[in-house]
Amino acid sequence: MSSLSIATATEVFDLLRDDLAAIESEFAHQSDSPVEVVTDIAQYLIAGGGKRIRPMMLLLSARAVGCESEARIRLGAVVEMLHTATLVHDDIIDEASTRRGRPSSNTTWGNAKCVLAGDWLYMQSFQTALAERNFRILDLLISLTQQMVEGELLQMEKLGHLINEEEYFDLIYRKTACLFKVSMQLGAVIAVPPTTPNAAPFEEALGEYGRNLGLAFQIVDDVLDLTAQDDVLGKPTASDLREGKATLAVIHALERGTGADREAIRTVLADRSFARVAHADILEILQRHESLAYAMDTACAYAEAARQSIADLPESDYKRALLWVPGFVTTRDR
Amino acid sequence: MSSLSIATATEVFDLLRDDLAAIESEFAHQSDSPVEVVTDIAQYLIAGGGKRIRPMMLLLSARAVGCESEARIRLGAVVEMLHTATLVHDDIIDEASTRRGRPSSNTTWGNAKCVLAGDWLYMQSFQTALAERNFRILDLLISLTQQMVEGELLQMEKLGHLINEEEYFDLIYRKTACLFKVSMQLGAVIAVPPTTPNAAPFEEALGEYGRNLGLAFQIVDDVLDLTAQDDVLGKPTASDLREGKATLAVIHALERGTGADREAIRTVLADRSFARVAHADILEILQRHESLAYAMDTACAYAEAARQSIADLPESDYKRALLWVPGFVTTRDR
Repeated sequence: MSSLSIATATEVFDLLRDDLAAIESEFAHQSDSPVEVVTDIAQYLIAGGGKRIRPMMLLLSARAVGCESEARIRLGAVVEMLHTATLVHDDIIDEASTRRGRPSSNTTWGNAKCVLAGDWLYMQSFQTALAERNFRILDLLISLTQQMVEGELLQMEKLGHLINEEEYFDLIYRKTACLFKVSMQLGAVIAVPPTTPNAAPFEEALGEYGRNLGLAFQIVDDVLDLTAQDDVLGKPTASDLREGKATLAVIHALERGTGADREAIRTVLADRSFARVAHADILEILQRHESLAYAMDTACAYAEAARQSIADLPESDYKRALLWVPGFVTTRDR
Repeated sequence: MSSLSIATATEVFDLLRDDLAAIESEFAHQSDSPVEVVTDIAQYLIAGGGKRIRPMMLLLSARAVGCESEARIRLGAVVEMLHTATLVHDDIIDEASTRRGRPSSNTTWGNAKCVLAGDWLYMQSFQTALAERNFRILDLLISLTQQMVEGELLQMEKLGHLINEEEYFDLIYRKTACLFKVSMQLGAVIAVPPTTPNAAPFEEALGEYGRNLGLAFQIVDDVLDLTAQDDVLGKPTASDLREGKATLAVIHALERGTGADREAIRTVLADRSFARVAHADILEILQRHESLAYAMDTACAYAEAARQSIADLPESDYKRALLWVPGFVTTRDR
């Protein structure tokens, strides 16, 4: 195979199959608590699926810089558990009734237990990371978590309000791109001994790849939320607008729309419902201003920037896989 | 002053005055976030008072083993912030409307923001602790937090049910004694370089003091909850029974009471109210079986065990202060 060719989905999953299976076992091990209800909630959440995209990022990053350490399995599980912890608390905040097509954990166990289950998942992630005895890993994970929590609070402050692109990019960085970035950085960090004084080779490039990929991923997520049908995403369509969240296509239309267009969007955001303006009317506005295309073009530009970020990485099957992922992320339909 | 004499409150506060003031400044510094609402909630909670007993423990412990490091100020603030984080999440869980005589944070900002504010306080505590570059500190704090979270979940499982003494002691260890223990241990840990391979001198003795003192403290807290008037504690009287929680005196009466006594207690716990059985009737049962005295005697035994734990510590004003604290804790009326 030429080192310049792009991998296929099958090739990428073949590369990672054993590592991903090891990460699934690691979850079972890590979600074991002396308190039964913790184990129940943790296993429900982790078995609940999810695309495991963050562990995949970490594995590809680690392998691309030649890391064979078992730490990649443990930390692959850590980034997914951390992600799961944020979802549990977010579902309480959003009063979500479903997640990934199943009842959300707060619906099943109630808010009170889920506040604590989220706390427990955070602590379990940190315990596992702490066992690596590497301060750099802890620096990345703890400041990441704080940035995500701050992002969720910022998001709440802005619900129902119009925001600009800069605010949008800050929010999606904190919500998604920052964990993608750290997952990639961790791959580089565990490839060198914990006592390495300077940044690990390629840590910055891999982190930049993760940031760009994360932004592309979230922009696509937000477009799919606007356009997909109820039964595809496992949640109500246009749930962002129903929660008062303006995403990239909506912000684009607001900046270019007529007075009536702006008013229609403003009404939905303020009402947090389609009672006065129909979902189809919003889609018509977004199409008329080519706002959905603008958002997808932006996502594709970040996907391309992700590929460019790792141009200097040595050639390998893992690099080829990393070059494939951005295209996968921007062409998915769920 | 003889090294055997017991200190007075004034002497103890004089010893710690400067350090406690430095810790208050450290709070202001640590609760500063780029997200305004975080700073607002954090400052409301931390300015809300509290007895600062955990930082006091840490300071006395550190000083008693000769530690002059500024780490005692930073970690003194950390243990109080960690305590505050648990209170924010507990208030959401208990649907508390007041805390320390003021509206609770969830009443003021709503549950959603307080879930995140609690998360933020946890992360901020860990960030500060992480800056010490000492794995032992992080081991203690993270496993402590996980034990506390598990304890709160265990408590929820047992609400409205009868529990035995063993279960009660496990719950109050997790709720209170475990953080007292870690606060004391941290004092010993920062007195030695981070690379010290074995436990710091006196770490075990000081930890044991903290555990015993914490148990005494919580038993007294639970007795005061049963007996004090509304306006003394800043919360409704007998709030534990109203939440379905059986504490030591109640467990004692359940084990010794007549069938009618047991039934009366069982009714209040199951109803989580005094609608069918009056508060005064419960107090009469507890008095008839000398259950409140039994609980206070138990607290005093743990207070004495705390003093015994540090018998081998070198004599100093700080040791004298530590010998004074258990008596203060068991004779307080709020």
